[in-house]
Amino acid sequence: MAREILDRVGDKWSVEVLYRLGHGVRRFSELRRDVDGISQRMLTATLRGLERDGIVRRTVHPVVPPRVDYELTPLGETLRDVITAMVEWAGDHTADIDAARAAYDRALTGDDG
Amino acid sequence: MAREILDRVGDKWSVEVLYRLGHGVRRFSELRRDVDGISQRMLTATLRGLERDGIVRRTVHPVVPPRVDYELTPLGETLRDVITAMVEWAGDHTADIDAARAAYDRALTGDDG
Repeated sequence: MAREILDRVGDKWSVEVLYRLGHGVRRFSELRRDVDGISQRMLTATLRGLERDGIVRRTVHPVVPPRVDYELTPLGETLRDVITAMVEWAGDHTADIDAARAAYDRALTGDDG
Repeated sequence: MAREILDRVGDKWSVEVLYRLGHGVRRFSELRRDVDGISQRMLTATLRGLERDGIVRRTVHPVVPPRVDYELTPLGETLRDVITAMVEWAGDHTADIDAARAAYDRALTGDDG
């Protein structure tokens, strides 16, 4: 089992960044704004890891100030459907999971009627 | 974006445990053996989190010694295809990613010919 890869690809920040890059090229500043709660440092680290894995391509445009774009590589494109399915599953089942957690915690504390 | 859920579901240990439960009911001891490198403590924590989320059901059989089984709930079943796709992607692309990492690291150190 390719655990080191799962650890990267399954990372919550990676999933969110890849989900957005699945919709097209993005600037660093756009990702920073769109991935709610991510720090500049964490976004840099996430993108660098994905670039090292060959999943994301980084392009620096020689303008002033420099513009840095990120996009999926062909390898990254093969991951798009997987990421989309995971993000959609999480979105579709948030209420179910919240309800399950509440029930579990009530049972634990004995506060279930 | 349901980040808290992605953090649980995307966790490397959760992915591996869910992948195995996707093939049917498993005892704790079977999971402990099959998920390479997982500690008893980490397996317990992973299963408890998944149980709290309503994704995994835990059944204690009143035998001596007690037998504890784990299986996907109906909610967990809806996650099976997503997990399978992710695990298969990782398995299919391990060589690509290893090659990309090696190339990236060579470029960083200037050792690219």
